[in-house]
Amino acid sequence: METLKLNHKHRGLFLSLEGVDGVGKSTQAEHLRAFFEAQDRTVVITREPGGTALGVQIRRMLLHGDDVSPRAEALLYAADRAHHVATVIRPALEAGHVVISDRYIDSSLAYQAGGRELSQADIRELSEFATGGLWPQRTYVLDMSFEASRARLTGEPDRLESAGSAFFERTREAFLRLARQDARRCRVIDASQSVEDVWAQIHADVEQLS
Amino acid sequence: METLKLNHKHRGLFLSLEGVDGVGKSTQAEHLRAFFEAQDRTVVITREPGGTALGVQIRRMLLHGDDVSPRAEALLYAADRAHHVATVIRPALEAGHVVISDRYIDSSLAYQAGGRELSQADIRELSEFATGGLWPQRTYVLDMSFEASRARLTGEPDRLESAGSAFFERTREAFLRLARQDARRCRVIDASQSVEDVWAQIHADVEQLS
Repeated sequence: METLKLNHKHRGLFLSLEGVDGVGKSTQAEHLRAFFEAQDRTVVITREPGGTALGVQIRRMLLHGDDVSPRAEALLYAADRAHHVATVIRPALEAGHVVISDRYIDSSLAYQAGGRELSQADIRELSEFATGGLWPQRTYVLDMSFEASRARLTGEPDRLESAGSAFFERTREAFLRLARQDARRCRVIDASQSVEDVWAQIHADVEQLS
Repeated sequence: METLKLNHKHRGLFLSLEGVDGVGKSTQAEHLRAFFEAQDRTVVITREPGGTALGVQIRRMLLHGDDVSPRAEALLYAADRAHHVATVIRPALEAGHVVISDRYIDSSLAYQAGGRELSQADIRELSEFATGGLWPQRTYVLDMSFEASRARLTGEPDRLESAGSAFFERTREAFLRLARQDARRCRVIDASQSVEDVWAQIHADVEQLS
């Protein structure tokens, strides 16, 4: 499938944060924001899914409509991503900004692929088409065991109990496997450390990028 | 991209009708319906886009929402098609019915491809993914010149005048090119003949299929 040529001349920087719910992605996004703003860079923090008004409509259709077939669902998620890249991420990068996305392609690969009907290759190919081949320069995979995550979320046990440890561990393993497959782009960070220690590791790495 | 294995054991028959607006596709669909019903076959006449409730929602989003980027638009059309195939076309074929679709993949190739950003290969690949590789056994391309079409539609000149002859001829050429590329599946029918003569040609062909 053809992809858009990446404009490597843009001075923007594209980072993504990945990992299961509750590992501290949004906290680290704010640390990154403060770091880059101190260097007088403009920072755009965005998220998938639902980073645009169209994405919110698509999400509503998926959650409240009829049962949607697996292929239709994957195509709708990809449409959300295509619009997000075309109208938020790419323009910001071309303006030289720092873009930090809370979840991106790796989340689709970890959560959507591997079902009965759709392979990881299918989801990857749809994502490549949707984004015109735009990948982050760096992805931080925040990694935590189920037990550490449960201990952290004592205030809200429902969220984890409803999903269950098997789902948690399967998704965690998927993220770690993706990070191994693309070791040049991805850094796995032990997210069971204190927020400050997690940030210290990300900080040391991101300083070399910017 | 991986595709679903086609279930060639189904005794269904899948036909599509293609061509620019006003060439008589729905009239010929009704002739086909009468022909197969006389043989005690169940006939499902459907259409793209908008053959399902989800498709109607997607269409509304495309027509009344924000500007949608070209890739997001192509993915949304593909999602419509995926749902249409999964919930209407494939179940009917597996039940042994005759499915007649007023427009299908060729229409996407003729109308959506060839713009600034998306190639015919892109649209074809998305369609293959969406349908799991399901193509009609036969496609009738109803072909007519701009002049013949204008003469026929004397009652409603607005529709043609708004689109224009250049657009008409470009789309017509695209359909003819697609029919040449897949001559085993496609039959080009001169739609400037009388309705009866057009049907006589389709009839002679479809008798050999069923």
